[in-house]
Parts: sequence; C-alpha cells; structure tokens
Amino acid sequence: MFISFEGIDGCGKSTQSRLLAEALRDEGRDVVLTREPGGSPGAEEIRRLLVEGTGERWSPETETLLFTAARRDHLERLIRPALAANQTVITDRFADSTRVYQGATRGDLRAMVDRLHEVMIGVEPDLTLVIDIDAATGLRRGTARGGGEDRFESMGLAFQEKLAAGFRALAAEYPDRVRLIDGSGSADQVAARVRRALPAMPA
Amino acid sequence: MFISFEGIDGCGKSTQSRLLAEALRDEGRDVVLTREPGGSPGAEEIRRLLVEGTGERWSPETETLLFTAARRDHLERLIRPALAANQTVITDRFADSTRVYQGATRGDLRAMVDRLHEVMIGVEPDLTLVIDIDAATGLRRGTARGGGEDRFESMGLAFQEKLAAGFRALAAEYPDRVRLIDGSGSADQVAARVRRALPAMPA
Repeated sequence: MFISFEGIDGCGKSTQSRLLAEALRDEGRDVVLTREPGGSPGAEEIRRLLVEGTGERWSPETETLLFTAARRDHLERLIRPALAANQTVITDRFADSTRVYQGATRGDLRAMVDRLHEVMIGVEPDLTLVIDIDAATGLRRGTARGGGEDRFESMGLAFQEKLAAGFRALAAEYPDRVRLIDGSGSADQVAARVRRALPAMPA
Repeated sequence: MFISFEGIDGCGKSTQSRLLAEALRDEGRDVVLTREPGGSPGAEEIRRLLVEGTGERWSPETETLLFTAARRDHLERLIRPALAANQTVITDRFADSTRVYQGATRGDLRAMVDRLHEVMIGVEPDLTLVIDIDAATGLRRGTARGGGEDRFESMGLAFQEKLAAGFRALAAEYPDRVRLIDGSGSADQVAARVRRALPAMPA
C-alpha cells in the first residue's frame, strides 16, 4: 500500500507519518517511511536546489520541473521497488503538494502541472491523508520550528490560507483517494483519526 | 535571430559557435554566445547534477527532466531577454541534443521527449547547424580533449555512430530549420561553410 500525507507546513504531517509508520510496524508490517522532495539520494540532491535560495531563484515552471525530476527518481529508486517487495510506503508529500503549491497558488499552472504529471509520473498513492489545520496555527508552528528550509513560510498568512484551501479542494476533487483529517488537538488524537481513516488491511 | 549548433562530441561545434559569434560581432551585431546544459546561473547548477557522476546516476527519464529544467531556466533568464533586446543568440546545443541523446539512443523515449518539450519549452531556434563528422573522428577528438565531463564519450564507437545518425535524421525531419554542415577540414574551412548556410541578415 502506498500512502501519502499532505497539508500546509506546520500541520503535523511529518509527525503523523512517523506515528503511522510506528503503529503499522507494531502490527508487524514492513514499512518504508520517506518524504518529498527527496527520499532517494538523487532526489535529495535535487531537493537542495529547491529548498535553498530565495523565492525568486526559480520560476514556478522550472521549479515544477525540478520537483518532477526529484519525484521520478524517488519513484524509480525507492517507491516502486518497495511496493514490489510488498512493503507499505508512507511518504510525507507527493504529487498533491505540487498541484497545490505550484499549480494552485503561483499563477494558474495547474493544467501544466497535470500534463507534466501525466507524461512523467502517472502514479497516485492508494490513499492520501490531508492533515487539515487553520492557516494561522500552521504558520505559527512552522515559524516556531524555524527549519529555515521552506521558502513558502515567509510568504504570509493569506498565502497559507490559499494553500490550506487548495489541499481541502483536493479532497473534493479526488473523493476516492484523498481523506481530510482534522488536525486539531494532540498528536495522539490526530493519530487516532488517521488510523480510523485507513481501510482494514489484510495481515 | 536564435541559432543553435548541434552534433556529437568532438564535432567542433563549440569552436564553430565561437567563430560565428566573432564573425557576426565583426559585422557589428550584438551577439550572446551561450551553451547547454547551462547558460544561466540556475541552469549551470543543474548542469553539475547532469555532467558529474556515473552513467547510471539518473534514469533517462529523470535526466530528460533535469535537462528540461535547465533549458527552461536558460530560456527564461537568458535567451528570451536577449532576443527581446534584439541580440543574436548563438547556443552550443539546445533541444535537439535531448531529442538525439535521450530520445533516440537511450531506449525509445522520443515520444516522451517531444511531449515534455511541447508542454515546458515550446520554442525552436530559427536556424540549427549540425556539424557533421564521422563518429570515429569525433570520439578521437573528444577523448583527446579529456574534459572528463561527458558521460557519453565513454560509451564507445557504436554509440557515437548512433548519435551521429540521429543528428543527421534531424536535418531530414526539420528541413526548414536544420542544416547539415560538413565538419571535415580545418576550423576555418568549416566556419566558411557555416557562414554560407546563414541567411542574408538585415543590418
């Protein structure tokens, strides 16, 4: 099974990815926990080009090509081999992040993002969990964490609200694949909601 | 005017790009001489990912995405602004190199290369000059030069012959845009052939 976590920065998806991986391992499953951009050695090198520098370093189109190059490497070198070996893959971000960040917020590039995905990636997770929190909370947590990696965090509350709305819209666009998870409360409370959103999995 | 030089490594296209730029400057034109992969600061950073490492570092698909990301940056940040300022742009390689190297020789990826070009680049040079030499000569010159940058040079004569045939086929595929230039003889002899292939340019 191929599961992705999505949502705005500070929503808690990295924590939830880890907690779900631990819960499934406790049940005896073989889990690969990964993230985007990155997740394979080549993709991590491309990630460095993406996360460093100013917001003007790449145009939205070039940025989308670099994200897609990193995703293709991640898919070929980590995700597909793991799924072929019957492992469960949990990734912190996948193609939906590109749809929302590059497609819905930085000019109207969604059509280009979709065509590029169709030509070069063509795969969706079996299940996508969007951890939904309000934009102000996400921004506060993201800024407090201060990773310094995310060029988007500096773009303010209105931008975070647009992103949060973009992720919610995905749940309406792909109702069979994308589940919206209430991200309020403690990490354990959210983890319980995540666990209930998973289908019964054969042992 | 936007002019590209193409051909296998060791064919002399870098020399010819430089000689044509000098000749046009002598005629009073404002010429920008550039190259791919690279040509703009961002594209040069992507170039480093492409030219270093072993032949197995990237799959042909990921490699094509990285070349296209570099090309998009080069186009946006250097080529388009120069053309808009009425400069003549001469580039050592452009999209035809991707068509031949990734499209025609590393598995049958030409359809993917064409779709990616259409979605993300969409521009062709006004004139493309393929410097045509036999593969053995190219390989000997390329190896003698020993730049160490080109992962393709290590792939042998049969591969170089396939590339040379791929570049010749482009001239048949795009007869209005691509001219085949005999690359034998001295650099000055080839430069005279290049100069004759150029249309009369308004002063």
